[in-house]
Amino acid sequence: MFAPSPALTPVVILDKPQLAENIGAAARVMANFGLTELRLVAPRDGWPQSRAFASASGADWVLNAVTLFPTVADAIADLEIVHAATARPRETLLPVLTPTQSVAELQGASRAGLKVGFLFGAERAGLETVDIALCKAIMTLPIDSRFRSLNLAQAVAITAYEWRKAADDTPPAAFAQTQKLADGAMMQGLFQQLEEELEVAGFFHPPEKKPAMVRNLRVALSRARFSEQEARTFRGVITALVRGRGQTFRKKADPSSLP
Amino acid sequence: MFAPSPALTPVVILDKPQLAENIGAAARVMANFGLTELRLVAPRDGWPQSRAFASASGADWVLNAVTLFPTVADAIADLEIVHAATARPRETLLPVLTPTQSVAELQGASRAGLKVGFLFGAERAGLETVDIALCKAIMTLPIDSRFRSLNLAQAVAITAYEWRKAADDTPPAAFAQTQKLADGAMMQGLFQQLEEELEVAGFFHPPEKKPAMVRNLRVALSRARFSEQEARTFRGVITALVRGRGQTFRKKADPSSLP
Repeated sequence: MFAPSPALTPVVILDKPQLAENIGAAARVMANFGLTELRLVAPRDGWPQSRAFASASGADWVLNAVTLFPTVADAIADLEIVHAATARPRETLLPVLTPTQSVAELQGASRAGLKVGFLFGAERAGLETVDIALCKAIMTLPIDSRFRSLNLAQAVAITAYEWRKAADDTPPAAFAQTQKLADGAMMQGLFQQLEEELEVAGFFHPPEKKPAMVRNLRVALSRARFSEQEARTFRGVITALVRGRGQTFRKKADPSSLP
Repeated sequence: MFAPSPALTPVVILDKPQLAENIGAAARVMANFGLTELRLVAPRDGWPQSRAFASASGADWVLNAVTLFPTVADAIADLEIVHAATARPRETLLPVLTPTQSVAELQGASRAGLKVGFLFGAERAGLETVDIALCKAIMTLPIDSRFRSLNLAQAVAITAYEWRKAADDTPPAAFAQTQKLADGAMMQGLFQQLEEELEVAGFFHPPEKKPAMVRNLRVALSRARFSEQEARTFRGVITALVRGRGQTFRKKADPSSLP
């Protein structure tokens, strides 16, 4: 039987990151989406930095495993395919991919046994063209051209999210349906109770409109897809509404029944 | 020629945000992906805050247009469909959607002319169940269960990214909405009327269970996605049920009123 190997997680490489907060935030969101291997190329303020741990909010295992490199070329030396994340494709003949396309390609490569990664540039300067040229493709986020200043950790977040989404595309329990749905008989019992009480209350006027009114009520309630418990609850609601006011009236009419 | 209306951008609502940096980072990434309308519910440190502007990195127009609300109910009163972003679906029967599914549904609704939004909870506490119950669905990010602590602005980033990604290529008008959906204020009016009458009727017993009972009623009715007309109809239903029995009782108690 054919069973594809699971995709290994990609390496995330940050080139010359300036802010420790961004390194920590990147580590945190990597952990959120199951990524673990973070490499830093010449971080401006050295390594380790306590502020990175503060902003990682507990994803310390990612930061503790960080490896340091002097250049991008060193950082990606053992990787077979690296995609460069940049919002501004330069004059290059590299393919430009959406995050979905980029992740699909790298997961395919990873399943085939290759070691893959995403390269992110520094906060202000971005990636240098010479380093982009070491990559196999450019991944571009669909940024609004009127405001291109994307935070570094946000770029990592979206990449890590896309990776996880693609690696595990089974949808969540579309309906967290833990309770049994009410069947037709239960719903009809509910409808009949409601309509009898509304009849008593003079709700259906003029009488010739009653069939349409009944139908509209039933459609609206059917759309809610009540569970059995909910159908019982709403029968209780109707009873309470009807009897409750009667009690209030009775109390008003007969002061001796008040405590 | 058929040309689908463009989807309007969704409102982003942050419930009780604690850190100005996160508000600014959310505004920044909204601007990155073309979203503009940010609402804050009771921000812990008041508003405006200079640190939010610092972390927005120039996306000042989003922050300058921020509107403030005392409660989630107020903040979503004019919206027809709001999805609650939460990593922890509670015991609720709301549908649970992936970001892709959530965005597809809200873009369809937006193209059909409805006003839509995403609700995000506070940094530590998340969303309260009572506020989730005001929403039409839950949007859940595919977070690794071993490290669920997702930064607030990262959640906004992924949502805004998915919105922009899908805005180009979602199929048109999945929503064949011929009637105007009831907005949050209409639904809240309906809920309040129902709950007041049930309170009078002694429905909520034991009293400590009232919050859960109220929540369950609201979730069940929210799922029905009432149109404005249906919401009005059900308010009439409640009134009729309450008054009708009173009349019946009066009639029985006072035979002289019979024809």
